Amino acid sequence: MEHRLLLGKNIQKHRKKQRISQEKLAEYSGLHRTYIGSVERAERNISIDNISKIASALNVNIMCLFE
Amino acid sequence: MEHRLLLGKNIQKHRKKQRISQEKLAEYSGLHRTYIGSVERAERNISIDNISKIASALNVNIMCLFE
Repeated sequence: MEHRLLLGKNIQKHRKKQRISQEKLAEYSGLHRTYIGSVERAERNISIDNISKIASALNVNIMCLFE
Repeated sequence: MEHRLLLGKNIQKHRKKQRISQEKLAEYSGLHRTYIGSVERAERNISIDNISKIASALNVNIMCLFE
């Protein structure tokens, strides 16, 4: 749960830093907007393939989402 | 797929460095031995909660599994 929270906060931090809406991040990553929201709130047990899609959509190294 | 491979290689690297068998890592993480093997071979779309269990079992920061 601790790592879900860390991941969710980091996704939101990078998304806001780039002034991207959840809708845009959903579009860029090919995921659903409500799914992005639930991942940011640590409600979902997201898989590595979807974490990878979000990292690519944010143009950040996947490691940055766990620091 | 690229990130599955990275994760699998890093789990195996840390496991071997600590001279832990897949059986022991399975025991420490509460996952199944064949599951550990398939994650190391990048065959599974592992979730954040299970990545977290493996990082804890290996006593490494989760970030180390993505570098």
